[in-house]
Amino acid sequence: MIEVDDLVAAAASDAVGWDRDGLPDDTIDMAARGGLLGADRPAAFGGAELDALELGRLAETLGYVCTSLRSLLTVHGMVAAAVDRWGTVAQRAEWLPRLNSGAVVAALAATEAGAGTELSAVAAAFESDGTDFLVSGTKLWVTFGQRADVYLVLGRAPGGLCAALVDRDRPGVEVEPAESGLGLRGARLATVRFDRVRIPATQLIAPPGFGLSHVIGTALDHGRYTVGWGCVGLARACLDDAAAHTVTRVQGGTVLAEHQLIRATLGRSWVEVEGAQALCERAADARIAGSPEALIATIAAKYAAAGAAAAVSERAVRVLGAAGCAPDSRIGRFYRDAKVMQIIEGAQEVAEVTMGEHIVRGAR
Amino acid sequence: MIEVDDLVAAAASDAVGWDRDGLPDDTIDMAARGGLLGADRPAAFGGAELDALELGRLAETLGYVCTSLRSLLTVHGMVAAAVDRWGTVAQRAEWLPRLNSGAVVAALAATEAGAGTELSAVAAAFESDGTDFLVSGTKLWVTFGQRADVYLVLGRAPGGLCAALVDRDRPGVEVEPAESGLGLRGARLATVRFDRVRIPATQLIAPPGFGLSHVIGTALDHGRYTVGWGCVGLARACLDDAAAHTVTRVQGGTVLAEHQLIRATLGRSWVEVEGAQALCERAADARIAGSPEALIATIAAKYAAAGAAAAVSERAVRVLGAAGCAPDSRIGRFYRDAKVMQIIEGAQEVAEVTMGEHIVRGAR
Amino acid sequence: MIEVDDLVAAAASDAVGWDRDGLPDDTIDMAARGGLLGADRPAAFGGAELDALELGRLAETLGYVCTSLRSLLTVHGMVAAAVDRWGTVAQRAEWLPRLNSGAVVAALAATEAGAGTELSAVAAAFESDGTDFLVSGTKLWVTFGQRADVYLVLGRAPGGLCAALVDRDRPGVEVEPAESGLGLRGARLATVRFDRVRIPATQLIAPPGFGLSHVIGTALDHGRYTVGWGCVGLARACLDDAAAHTVTRVQGGTVLAEHQLIRATLGRSWVEVEGAQALCERAADARIAGSPEALIATIAAKYAAAGAAAAVSERAVRVLGAAGCAPDSRIGRFYRDAKVMQIIEGAQEVAEVTMGEHIVRGAR
Amino acid sequence: MIEVDDLVAAAASDAVGWDRDGLPDDTIDMAARGGLLGADRPAAFGGAELDALELGRLAETLGYVCTSLRSLLTVHGMVAAAVDRWGTVAQRAEWLPRLNSGAVVAALAATEAGAGTELSAVAAAFESDGTDFLVSGTKLWVTFGQRADVYLVLGRAPGGLCAALVDRDRPGVEVEPAESGLGLRGARLATVRFDRVRIPATQLIAPPGFGLSHVIGTALDHGRYTVGWGCVGLARACLDDAAAHTVTRVQGGTVLAEHQLIRATLGRSWVEVEGAQALCERAADARIAGSPEALIATIAAKYAAAGAAAAVSERAVRVLGAAGCAPDSRIGRFYRDAKVMQIIEGAQEVAEVTMGEHIVRGAR
Repeated sequence: MIEVDDLVAAAASDAVGWDRDGLPDDTIDMAARGGLLGADRPAAFGGAELDALELGRLAETLGYVCTSLRSLLTVHGMVAAAVDRWGTVAQRAEWLPRLNSGAVVAALAATEAGAGTELSAVAAAFESDGTDFLVSGTKLWVTFGQRADVYLVLGRAPGGLCAALVDRDRPGVEVEPAESGLGLRGARLATVRFDRVRIPATQLIAPPGFGLSHVIGTALDHGRYTVGWGCVGLARACLDDAAAHTVTRVQGGTVLAEHQLIRATLGRSWVEVEGAQALCERAADARIAGSPEALIATIAAKYAAAGAAAAVSERAVRVLGAAGCAPDSRIGRFYRDAKVMQIIEGAQEVAEVTMGEHIVRGAR
Repeated sequence: MIEVDDLVAAAASDAVGWDRDGLPDDTIDMAARGGLLGADRPAAFGGAELDALELGRLAETLGYVCTSLRSLLTVHGMVAAAVDRWGTVAQRAEWLPRLNSGAVVAALAATEAGAGTELSAVAAAFESDGTDFLVSGTKLWVTFGQRADVYLVLGRAPGGLCAALVDRDRPGVEVEPAESGLGLRGARLATVRFDRVRIPATQLIAPPGFGLSHVIGTALDHGRYTVGWGCVGLARACLDDAAAHTVTRVQGGTVLAEHQLIRATLGRSWVEVEGAQALCERAADARIAGSPEALIATIAAKYAAAGAAAAVSERAVRVLGAAGCAPDSRIGRFYRDAKVMQIIEGAQEVAEVTMGEHIVRGAR
Repeated sequence: MIEVDDLVAAAASDAVGWDRDGLPDDTIDMAARGGLLGADRPAAFGGAELDALELGRLAETLGYVCTSLRSLLTVHGMVAAAVDRWGTVAQRAEWLPRLNSGAVVAALAATEAGAGTELSAVAAAFESDGTDFLVSGTKLWVTFGQRADVYLVLGRAPGGLCAALVDRDRPGVEVEPAESGLGLRGARLATVRFDRVRIPATQLIAPPGFGLSHVIGTALDHGRYTVGWGCVGLARACLDDAAAHTVTRVQGGTVLAEHQLIRATLGRSWVEVEGAQALCERAADARIAGSPEALIATIAAKYAAAGAAAAVSERAVRVLGAAGCAPDSRIGRFYRDAKVMQIIEGAQEVAEVTMGEHIVRGAR
Repeated sequence: MIEVDDLVAAAASDAVGWDRDGLPDDTIDMAARGGLLGADRPAAFGGAELDALELGRLAETLGYVCTSLRSLLTVHGMVAAAVDRWGTVAQRAEWLPRLNSGAVVAALAATEAGAGTELSAVAAAFESDGTDFLVSGTKLWVTFGQRADVYLVLGRAPGGLCAALVDRDRPGVEVEPAESGLGLRGARLATVRFDRVRIPATQLIAPPGFGLSHVIGTALDHGRYTVGWGCVGLARACLDDAAAHTVTRVQGGTVLAEHQLIRATLGRSWVEVEGAQALCERAADARIAGSPEALIATIAAKYAAAGAAAAVSERAVRVLGAAGCAPDSRIGRFYRDAKVMQIIEGAQEVAEVTMGEHIVRGAR
């Protein structure tokens, strides 16, 4: 069972502060206690075993109140999903209980200065000395990297791209807080440097050559899925706030809600949120059914939802005017967050091309 | 059971001709024999009793091949739905069997020169002589008006707006073919003039005062629903044709499908079609559940689908280039049709405002 | 001096018929007498020697009333510009007087089934027998191809791509009317087949290898320029008609012009027309100054103007509703024309990529 | 003569810090010394007497480097323009020399919690005691309100809306720094409270009744003009940075600049910047000519330019990806600024409706 009421309440009162100072450790603990960190993992390993639709609705609920809080669910879940899917029996037994309970908080360390959209270009290296691996490289924009206990690191080994869990407390790991100029400011972003960090070969998830295509692939798919649902929540929050504003704010002798142009703006926004949510539900159905279409359906859902989040938050800022620019405005914060959502876990342009390939493949 | 294979095959070979000359009578007969005209009416009256989702999928199938053919389902179904919902026991027993079998083809005669979006402004008059009513007025853009045997006419009676069935063979009915400069050219549009046409009071569907809000309201809701699904079919046909073009057409030494910009265009189009279809399914669910949200969900579905149809057909024309402008191009025809779909059964702007009102109501 | 008042008057009364049956020969003669066909050619050869801005305004004036009429100016002007720029002294002396007086009407025969956007892929062949050339190939969508006396044909010679004037009355030229399913219906489009048509080498404009890059390049640049201005006229006509409709059409108890949403639509349209026109003026300035930026400025102008024409005509159809779909609606016709304008003389996507290249070049 | 080289250089190195901490006083002094604060005021009063086009280009230059710096030009210029246009001979002689030299920095205090778009709803009061006026009210989002020496305050007097200069050092003026959650963070925004601040009647600019329509009207028109040009600079900076990124960043084995989709994005952005700039030039022409169309041309220019700034900065963030989200990213900052530009000096929606009214007026 997942317990989010206290988190939602905390977000309602504190999300402005989180956006400024980062999600505090005790809120992360609260999320762990509530079961969020093992939300869709097997009960056998202490997870709550939510199905895809339940997980999605959870992400939507969190996304409605705070993108950074929802991102905790996303990023930790990405690592856990990858370990669960590609880990050995021993790895799953070792890591999943601790990940699910939140004893260990995980983060994904994939992006580099020279490898964003194109992760296959990572320069981070896994050097083998016969027994262990030595991990070196600098990873950027690690969500919750300031807090994480373990990183799922993507790098380059002799046998191909490789993904491994690297504990933060190993010698050679250096964590530096990073700041976002736009959104996701509460997500305790970090730059993480690995300087010949020694890890046993048992921390490799899947053999070299499978690191990106399989391990990180699973993580990204999982991430896109919860980002998509989170964006639906974000967009709906913006729509609700905009609508609430229109029924109280008077302009030209009548509340804004009576202005045709404002109504049309709300209507257009609503249909976009509904459409994005419906695509997220389609992705949920495909995931639950184990359909081979689940991957592309998830890409479509994330694309539509991130687009709706950007568009609806943008219009909400315009509806609220200066009020949306106030430093404690939820709308302004969501607007900054939404832009980031169009970039992470696959930029909108990449999604368009990938979906186009899917269509072209069908036409051949 | 609905049988559409032969209709689909006929459309595949003849839709170009239909667009030029109008859907022929024998195709309409074929549709009647196939059960289309009573698709979602009760079996007790000879209907096929499709549920909303099945009806939607039927409209999508027809929309994929020919908008004018799908419009036959739409317009006849609008009248039948109104009679079924608001007719007396006697009226239903009299009309539904004939409507469902196609013995009588029906059309909606609502729009006038001075009353399009705003139907409450109709000038057509129902004058009572104590026993009968005398119907006078000129109705425009009557879909299948050239072929219909009976018209559901919206007009003004002493007691308020009023809707009645007016048989075409009554003295004073004059039918003049109308031509569309854009789409729906195969739908045998007509201007229908009523000059003191005498009808018995028993042909009034619901009493005066209920004509627009109830009778035509039901018809429009039903029409929007099948138009929405039909637009999904239209959009998907355009996407399929565009995709097929891209895998054969060579440009710059490679097929168009290898061009990133073309792929992105296809990807964007696909997600719009999927999103529109998902909203049509939501509307289907709401209709099947008898939800009070069914009306607004249907408006959202039609809005999204007509928008997708316009956008996807527009891009398809650009992908095909001159080939899309050829007189026998399905894409060019769909492009013209799509524009009309953004106007009929409620213009996009009206839908936006209506949906905005829905949101505002919830925010109060 | 250019005389267009009678043409404009004729278009006002007859453009609907032209759209159905094609621009009649006597209207083309009227245009020739008015000086249109040599509008910007040197006075020494009988031209009216308009500068670029004057030519642009002329195209705008014609575009305001009829796209097909404006296309006569465009296509004839394309050929004349190419001959004037790249022809020898003898060729200019031979052809320009006849082209400028309209004694000879010219058309461009470049597009083929396998070569639209990518003209370098043309299959038409120029075979040399030592003295003469034998021209073979099939050209599509030849604007005013039904009426032209001479074609500027793009084809493939041993020395590279090659452009030559081919008189229509030579043996082996076959002209078949072509029909457009969308716009430009009055422009007497044709498919023109050349079957070993013998022409003297003196009809080659520039040597082989310069046919596309120079001769047709000049023609396309000239064509884009007048298409751009014509689209400004088209868009302004749509805006004017939409505005005129809004001040008379009553809806909801008040004229449409009082509806906020309608006003916003008109406002958005106006600023797009103004912006497109301003870019056309920039292109005019660059052309008059002989700036190396003239080419890219013209591409930008045509891109913006075709985009504005498409957007504004689309909104005008929605503002007018059914009235815009009537077969004699200027708005509906312009809407169909506008789509074609986004394709010819360089599709919008191609323009975007070309302009992007221009920017990238500057950034290196 | 205006000297901006040192300001531009300072912005290049310090704008990130300004965005965090506010434009420092010595930079404002540097601007004053450079002649910015009297840029388009008469030389007779110490101004640099730039014409509208020169002023626009200055705003563009500043907008290219820092929106907050450009806003200093804007807001001070708004007050100076209003005083110059509507002030008495004595008022002009008293205030203009000091405003032009920067001895006195001015800010506009118009917006209130209940009066943003609709300034006629201001609650601030001007109470007369026979000789003096007592000013009371709270003004929000006062650009450079933290630094200003004098405020042009809009309020309500017995005779109608009224505008007056209120010196900051008068008793009862309280200035509280305000923070923006989005853009314009360097512009030292303030909430300014006036508690029965006594001013002599000689500080009223124009009599009551003319405060909004004339005095603030002039200020807003002036503000829109420089905001528009500033947005052109902002957009061009984003385009340049995006282009520079594409020629160095490698993805998929080639620089981004070789990706068709990226090129198209740059191309589309460029034409929008060009179009916006062309409309700003049209506004300049109209202002220089003293045309009655200058007001609406300025609204169109600001609308187009703010739209281009929003669109181009948004795309630039996507092109740069994570790099655009870095806290020191110029692109990220411009993206936040651009949103604010769509709101201030007249929201985009208001501009659309106003331009629509202009069109409707012409159609009657």
